[in-house]
Amino acid sequence: MKTFSVTVLGNSAALPTRTRSLSSQVVNYRERLFLIDCGEGTQMNLKRNKIRTGKIGHIFISHLHGDHFYGLIGLISTFHLQNRKSVLHVYGPEPLEQIIRIQLEASDTRLSYPLAFHTTQSQKPEIIFDDGRMQISTLPLLHRVPTTGFLFSEKPLPRKLMREAADRYGVPLEKFESIRNGDDFTDEEGNLIPNSLLTLDPPSCRSFAYCSDTGYYEPLTGMISGCSLLYHEATFMEDLKEAAREKQHSTAADAARIAAKAGADRLLLGHFSARYDDLQPLLNEARAVFGNSFLAEENVTYEV
Amino acid sequence: MKTFSVTVLGNSAALPTRTRSLSSQVVNYRERLFLIDCGEGTQMNLKRNKIRTGKIGHIFISHLHGDHFYGLIGLISTFHLQNRKSVLHVYGPEPLEQIIRIQLEASDTRLSYPLAFHTTQSQKPEIIFDDGRMQISTLPLLHRVPTTGFLFSEKPLPRKLMREAADRYGVPLEKFESIRNGDDFTDEEGNLIPNSLLTLDPPSCRSFAYCSDTGYYEPLTGMISGCSLLYHEATFMEDLKEAAREKQHSTAADAARIAAKAGADRLLLGHFSARYDDLQPLLNEARAVFGNSFLAEENVTYEV
Repeated sequence: MKTFSVTVLGNSAALPTRTRSLSSQVVNYRERLFLIDCGEGTQMNLKRNKIRTGKIGHIFISHLHGDHFYGLIGLISTFHLQNRKSVLHVYGPEPLEQIIRIQLEASDTRLSYPLAFHTTQSQKPEIIFDDGRMQISTLPLLHRVPTTGFLFSEKPLPRKLMREAADRYGVPLEKFESIRNGDDFTDEEGNLIPNSLLTLDPPSCRSFAYCSDTGYYEPLTGMISGCSLLYHEATFMEDLKEAAREKQHSTAADAARIAAKAGADRLLLGHFSARYDDLQPLLNEARAVFGNSFLAEENVTYEV
Repeated sequence: MKTFSVTVLGNSAALPTRTRSLSSQVVNYRERLFLIDCGEGTQMNLKRNKIRTGKIGHIFISHLHGDHFYGLIGLISTFHLQNRKSVLHVYGPEPLEQIIRIQLEASDTRLSYPLAFHTTQSQKPEIIFDDGRMQISTLPLLHRVPTTGFLFSEKPLPRKLMREAADRYGVPLEKFESIRNGDDFTDEEGNLIPNSLLTLDPPSCRSFAYCSDTGYYEPLTGMISGCSLLYHEATFMEDLKEAAREKQHSTAADAARIAAKAGADRLLLGHFSARYDDLQPLLNEARAVFGNSFLAEENVTYEV
């Protein structure tokens, strides 16, 4: 199975704590790295996790609350000081480019590499990346400022041809591609050999959804239906659900309800309020609704 | 002796390392706190040092290279999230206010407290703070973008009246103030009692100079003449003095030469290039020129 994993760099909401950092995650898909959100201190956390930052080609910013992007300018500057040459693509809401550019100008910095901004909008989902193997879409979320999540979906692979069976039924080489794509085969004597005798199912398509920050938002479940791994914010617990509604954040139980309705395989809870020292009660609350819930622990890599 | 100390939060130049943070220091003068520079991660380092951030009323930014101010927006936001009420004064070069305001706008943040910006200029020294007991001046430095250091100078205190001697010579209460200010006393019989019999010297005035970033800049020595404690950048060692000249940074020996020519009591070296794992050679280089040199160690408080 090709690598598809997520490393959590920060899981704290709004404020860093003595033990928790601000939002950021690294998605590794077949050794290409994608950074999601970039709170203050992200470059230090990348270093601590010995992540090869030269492999990060794309950075996705969910929204412009500081705990999700104040580390971006520092990372961009550090790439420059390290004499990076390859293009860096940054995706995020409109004013982001201006915020970065004004700071580079103030320090009279001409970057050593091209920096390409791509503006996201939060009205409807949009495919923002597709390299033929993996596709990334935005997920409109329910928050106080324009906010999107991100859905990383593996694209369907061709079926796996069983070489021995193909030889046995006399399939010529030039038919291999159509059979990998699901066609049946008719041999020289006119016998129909069904595809199922010639191929195996490809590995199923994996997907990872990052949903932070958001209030409880049911339309999301349709967009992330059946995802393998869902990271969903769980800023509060149910006893503070009024605060959650007001600030358009979720409780741990909200996150679990979304995971259950979306039919996700697994749920990672994160973006915890600094008020919680012990996170076990949040996990318990989510597990009562959706058994396959886990805490998104910092410096831990999760397979998708 | 009233508190006058400096806590070093970060001593790394340009890039954070696994063990060193970006520039920031806290000056404590009689329990008022002043922050100098605010590299990324400063709010975490303040927390680690258990510094009561509510007592920080003034922040001084030397220049707009990112390693000296990318942590400012995060700290300003955190103060807001903590519902700070008291005014925060920020001093720095012109575009700083715009950089901060544009980010607060993007997150639709109306701060819970007043934020007052004060623009510094780097043409000539300027008094930017004076509370009657302590005075803060800018120090124009030699760097690639407009940069100032900061000189914290205690103001002269009145002489210390010896109460017993005053009683012995029959000094009336209403004369105390003039005698504290250095006047002699003439008693009822016309005898002149010299001030030296009535008072002791006040504690001598202490001063702290923060000089980062700067190339070797001799005019500085006149501005910080006789300072008690000098923090001077020492990005490189002498074998890289060409790089130092080109980038307008100093070597450890440069810093020591400035300390010697200024007649400083003690020198703290800081702003070390990330290339140095072991800092002892920088200290040795400085001590060969100026014996009273020390490394500015992070999370250590130095008395001025």
